Amino acid sequence: MAEFIPPGTRWVDLPSPFPIKRGGALHGARMAYETWGTLNAAHDNAILVLTGMSPDAHAASNTGNPAPGWWEWMIGPGKPIDTQRWFVLCVNALGSCKGSTGPASINPNTGASYRLDFPELSIEDGADAALAVVRELGIEQLACVLGNSMGGMTALSLLARHPGIARSHINICGAARALPFSIAIRSLQREAIRLDPHWNGGDYSEDHYPENGMRMARKLGVVTYRSALEWDGRFGRVRLDAEQREDDEPFGLEFEVESYLEAHARRFVRKYDPNCYLYLSRSMDWFDLGEAHGGDTLHGLSSIEGVHSALVIGVKTDILFPIQQQEEIAAGLRNAGCETRFLPMPSPQGHDAFLVDAARFGPAVTSFLRTLPATQIFTNRVA
Amino acid sequence: MAEFIPPGTRWVDLPSPFPIKRGGALHGARMAYETWGTLNAAHDNAILVLTGMSPDAHAASNTGNPAPGWWEWMIGPGKPIDTQRWFVLCVNALGSCKGSTGPASINPNTGASYRLDFPELSIEDGADAALAVVRELGIEQLACVLGNSMGGMTALSLLARHPGIARSHINICGAARALPFSIAIRSLQREAIRLDPHWNGGDYSEDHYPENGMRMARKLGVVTYRSALEWDGRFGRVRLDAEQREDDEPFGLEFEVESYLEAHARRFVRKYDPNCYLYLSRSMDWFDLGEAHGGDTLHGLSSIEGVHSALVIGVKTDILFPIQQQEEIAAGLRNAGCETRFLPMPSPQGHDAFLVDAARFGPAVTSFLRTLPATQIFTNRVA
Repeated sequence: MAEFIPPGTRWVDLPSPFPIKRGGALHGARMAYETWGTLNAAHDNAILVLTGMSPDAHAASNTGNPAPGWWEWMIGPGKPIDTQRWFVLCVNALGSCKGSTGPASINPNTGASYRLDFPELSIEDGADAALAVVRELGIEQLACVLGNSMGGMTALSLLARHPGIARSHINICGAARALPFSIAIRSLQREAIRLDPHWNGGDYSEDHYPENGMRMARKLGVVTYRSALEWDGRFGRVRLDAEQREDDEPFGLEFEVESYLEAHARRFVRKYDPNCYLYLSRSMDWFDLGEAHGGDTLHGLSSIEGVHSALVIGVKTDILFPIQQQEEIAAGLRNAGCETRFLPMPSPQGHDAFLVDAARFGPAVTSFLRTLPATQIFTNRVA
Repeated sequence: MAEFIPPGTRWVDLPSPFPIKRGGALHGARMAYETWGTLNAAHDNAILVLTGMSPDAHAASNTGNPAPGWWEWMIGPGKPIDTQRWFVLCVNALGSCKGSTGPASINPNTGASYRLDFPELSIEDGADAALAVVRELGIEQLACVLGNSMGGMTALSLLARHPGIARSHINICGAARALPFSIAIRSLQREAIRLDPHWNGGDYSEDHYPENGMRMARKLGVVTYRSALEWDGRFGRVRLDAEQREDDEPFGLEFEVESYLEAHARRFVRKYDPNCYLYLSRSMDWFDLGEAHGGDTLHGLSSIEGVHSALVIGVKTDILFPIQQQEEIAAGLRNAGCETRFLPMPSPQGHDAFLVDAARFGPAVTSFLRTLPATQIFTNRVA
């Protein structure tokens, strides 16, 4: 196991012990984060960005790390999330291997990596850990909490657990609960890792690493992050060149799309810890905002308090977090009295559209953030 | 390797040698088939059914085998394909392990199973082999050729290669070429099998069998044959009972949807030969009706001759053979001068809807077959 921490990462120590929803606690845990822009004197211009499962906190270039981030076109001066107005904070998810404490981190009680001794992680734990970073930076209320994919789950959990934490919310390709179809896909990914003899019950090394399992899991991920429509335009039926073919390998790669998947998987496999993958993947399966409401997800959403306006974006070609899930979020937030804009995007790129379809997602976010009132902390408390 | 042949199966010997499109030939090969109803004196009331990748020829119960078939509600007296009017013929695909010659069959040249010595199989070979059965039964022209899924590919190939072979055509969840998305999914399924050490380059036995690889391949198949929408209604977030759980297994099965997939996979794994799976899976990737037309699939479809009417059905929730592919088939057949009805079904069940959504597919097929003129052989030849 290993951690993969971008340069310029900063940390906040979590309260120790940090209680875990399903039992147990973390000791000496910390959260990795990066920021852009300046927190104003009133501390009321902060936007928190919660990520999908695999990204680190380096969403965009900054002084600590000038390399482009995974959302470079979204965050920066004059960009949709304009850092001339907003102070932007991105945290690496609790349980990840990209800076925040996770199964690949050292367990201070043993001096060795947690591996499967890491407590059972839930989305709710990630929300509480993100809150600790917000508080540590002196922010009482966020102007907006924005979550993508798994981060969309975390954002909803944060809003539900900590009423008043944010005045507005942007949910992109998120979900208020895991669907059985998504659970099935993630279960297969986890099974591919678990079946790899090198996984060895979580006790692998660099030399004996579950590379095949991780490759399969990642390939299946990439397939479900995209769409048939996009790939037809992109790859069609183009074959690999003779020298790229695996002619000696029976049933080896032959089409460009197969080689694309292989290249994607190879880039990922050694840069993401398999146990962290398993923990975060399962935390998504467990998530249901309706859990405290008899399994009524819509009721869970409707019970969110203190969010004045929201933008909910889904992608019609998304098979992993299908558009019905963002419709559900929008309906629930409206029930909660939140002024909600729902945008079903026709992007061909599937779930990953939010990472690549700048032409559609950029203006949507720009326009929503422009409607937010001048910085001002709302409160339900009687003065 | 083993073959799984239903009782009551009949056979037609293929011409020997039977040439294979990509090179080589089969010797002493045979095709398994079953029939329903009676071929009339004019031999002009025959409907050929071409199946998806895994079914056998036992589409419905008959005198040879009273057990229910995989399309029991579709074929029989008074059913949508009414065997009081039609003589129905279903062939098991060439390359399968359910009666027709395939990689699990004995190679007469060696006395041992073909395994990977089986020639590289194409959809076109399956079409030619099906034609041989039709001819052997004394049928000059089919009233209709109907293909589902892979069978929809085979049917188009048959129509393109043998002009005039059928007066009408029903294409259900089929495709005129493999999309890169579908190729990616099938490539992952094949990789899961190939990565299983027990696959052993195709040289496995009952005792050393690539069970894990086949389980993964089948689970991924079942996921892509269905849809998020259907599974939400069917499984929701229901957990397994305590005694069904794998609590001792880290990251073991927990949700009902996971156990459903596991049960499906277990039923399949030992009843389908892994090498046959690999060969048929790849044959679909290779299929493109536009191959002889510079890769212009629509042109390939438009060049089909002699089909007077067609019914093309797709399912809006199908991610493996998406609805655009059936739209393309319909557009191409119309270009070919064929009177074509296109039905995009709103079934929630995805690709597999044609197997289970009797309420939508039954009436569609009934109504199309009723419009077919009284039996009469059309011919383009000058008398």
